[in-house]
Amino acid sequence: MLKTCLENVRAGCPLVHSITNYVTVNDCANVLLAAGASPIMSDDAGEVEEITALCRATVLNIGTLNERTIQSMLLAGQKANALAHPVVLDPVGAGASALRTSTCRLLLREIKFNVIRGNISEIKALALGSGSTQGVDAALADQITDANLAEAVAYIRAFSRQTGAIIAVSGAIDVVSDADRSYIIKNGHPAMSKITGSGCMLSALVAAYLAANPANPLEAAAAAFVLMGLAGEKAAAVSAGTGSFRTNLLDAVSTITAEDLKAGAKIVEF
Amino acid sequence: MLKTCLENVRAGCPLVHSITNYVTVNDCANVLLAAGASPIMSDDAGEVEEITALCRATVLNIGTLNERTIQSMLLAGQKANALAHPVVLDPVGAGASALRTSTCRLLLREIKFNVIRGNISEIKALALGSGSTQGVDAALADQITDANLAEAVAYIRAFSRQTGAIIAVSGAIDVVSDADRSYIIKNGHPAMSKITGSGCMLSALVAAYLAANPANPLEAAAAAFVLMGLAGEKAAAVSAGTGSFRTNLLDAVSTITAEDLKAGAKIVEF
Amino acid sequence: MLKTCLENVRAGCPLVHSITNYVTVNDCANVLLAAGASPIMSDDAGEVEEITALCRATVLNIGTLNERTIQSMLLAGQKANALAHPVVLDPVGAGASALRTSTCRLLLREIKFNVIRGNISEIKALALGSGSTQGVDAALADQITDANLAEAVAYIRAFSRQTGAIIAVSGAIDVVSDADRSYIIKNGHPAMSKITGSGCMLSALVAAYLAANPANPLEAAAAAFVLMGLAGEKAAAVSAGTGSFRTNLLDAVSTITAEDLKAGAKIVEF
Repeated sequence: MLKTCLENVRAGCPLVHSITNYVTVNDCANVLLAAGASPIMSDDAGEVEEITALCRATVLNIGTLNERTIQSMLLAGQKANALAHPVVLDPVGAGASALRTSTCRLLLREIKFNVIRGNISEIKALALGSGSTQGVDAALADQITDANLAEAVAYIRAFSRQTGAIIAVSGAIDVVSDADRSYIIKNGHPAMSKITGSGCMLSALVAAYLAANPANPLEAAAAAFVLMGLAGEKAAAVSAGTGSFRTNLLDAVSTITAEDLKAGAKIVEF
Repeated sequence: MLKTCLENVRAGCPLVHSITNYVTVNDCANVLLAAGASPIMSDDAGEVEEITALCRATVLNIGTLNERTIQSMLLAGQKANALAHPVVLDPVGAGASALRTSTCRLLLREIKFNVIRGNISEIKALALGSGSTQGVDAALADQITDANLAEAVAYIRAFSRQTGAIIAVSGAIDVVSDADRSYIIKNGHPAMSKITGSGCMLSALVAAYLAANPANPLEAAAAAFVLMGLAGEKAAAVSAGTGSFRTNLLDAVSTITAEDLKAGAKIVEF
Repeated sequence: MLKTCLENVRAGCPLVHSITNYVTVNDCANVLLAAGASPIMSDDAGEVEEITALCRATVLNIGTLNERTIQSMLLAGQKANALAHPVVLDPVGAGASALRTSTCRLLLREIKFNVIRGNISEIKALALGSGSTQGVDAALADQITDANLAEAVAYIRAFSRQTGAIIAVSGAIDVVSDADRSYIIKNGHPAMSKITGSGCMLSALVAAYLAANPANPLEAAAAAFVLMGLAGEKAAAVSAGTGSFRTNLLDAVSTITAEDLKAGAKIVEF
């Protein structure tokens, strides 16, 4: 299934529309191209519906939210819903400000998301309407470990049931789950948290994988997580610091084959 | 002539003003520096005329168009016209939305462009007021091949006659043409389409080359295309994936000499 | 002291809020992570005060100024002042337009800056309300040399006395000075001026170093300059062009140890 998911992206070259932050937007475009998909970024309310309609998936990322783009996100997300295109929410820094938290609530109310991809702090902020956010990283107290895994999965499934979305939580241990089934993924490397954009790129990949694998969204999202984590492992093995790690991460995404993905996956169903 | 064009950029270090998209803006700044030019980006209507006046060329790139920057583009373009500075239009995604197409028409009506640099789909969208755009890439049916080259050149010359601009079309085969004379360039590498920004960077280089070679704009634009294509070839030969390709592309632009450019050029007058 | 400054950043992992330009924002985020700090970028007036309050330092960078973000800068800077968090001004291109100069004056009037970090042209533009700016680089006539060093230091100290800020001037010779004491730093490499973002990244590092070393702000700012300059030297020694230089610069920032910093520093008190 992992192999098929990757092959479908490379064969189908899905065009993905991202309304995203200007910190990591270039990385998001490049990771989509590296994976075999195609990016388009547009955020003006006057065109986002048309751009969404041209694409096969949409990502809404609130990393550098502003009043102008909130409206654009609503329009794009609702258009994607109308067309039954997958929509991914990346609630960057949810909980860090009232604006971020209230915008997430607004988006969750007005748009049906197929996947919500964040760290556990962000997911908790959405679920609880509270939670502390240390910049864009998960607070230490909120990390998923082998010890609290069962509790975390139960929490995540409950939020999936509430939202109807696959909840895809990245961290040292990843959990990709719908209301009933969960994948636990242990690919990845700590170096991924020493560059900006690991999370944003992962959300973009999830959108591309969903677009190309519409019949198996949970497996598609999990495959995107395995790909990103495996790329992080491969990049870390050949990097001399954080600059080359970023470069090598894109190299790895662009060269990992379906066979590599299967061979390197550290994934179990929970 | 190619050699002189490159040497004039490195000797003159032209300052180039770009109103451009936030996806590839960093790449555009870095490619200008790599080529020996100097970048400045500014997009607020309150200052763009002054910034344009400080510079020797202006690029208007509609990649992430919004209502605020359209007004800034008009002001900057008209100021550049008044000062007889070269102005380059990069109609990213023209045809993908009504906003993009109508904005291009507005810009073409209000500003005299020296060069319009796009892929053939974008150029067709401008010329016909129609055309399909697959994200930022030329649709397959619209690619210029040896078989349809004569037809393509005739089409491009007609659009040049209509607009008064040099039409610079990038693809597997590039065409850089005014109403009477055309250069066909076969430098480049498919890897260039697997990173974001190849086209945007090329538009920035065209502006720098025009600024430094005011007596020979057609040759200057063609030289910028040869430089970018040759850099793509050199980068592809030493890259391990799309991440390192992007890095190596900038390395190549920064190290290609006038001799290299002449020796590596695959250019003919048509 | 240099060693302690670096160690305090790595141990304390200060979260830094940047309201900055979209040209180099990704580089700024990555250099903060490379140095052991943590970045957050936000620029909407509706949330910047909350984000500032979460952080331990704030950077205001006017590189791609617009009316919307000026208001956000005022709110963030005043909030940082109220919380006694360090605030760094990067007056990119001050003097290049009336908007940039008047905005700097407004920010200087309404916010107490701990450090103003620019090239000598920008600092002169702030000090004199005049000055010519060649894009983002110091005009040649304005460079600090051994011959004019005493004069430059006197000028910089006077501006420090006037503003109450540490004035941190980057160039071939750096001067980091308050009204009474000055450090002269000769680390660095000309390649740093051939990529975009060297200055912006340095301003971000200064903010992180001040946050982690509140008792010694002058030494902290100087240490950030030594780190950036030393990283430039190390990167230049192993780079094949401007693309790899940028990558290697981040590698160097991420791997330079406290011992390296002390051993490689070219710093004297003036």
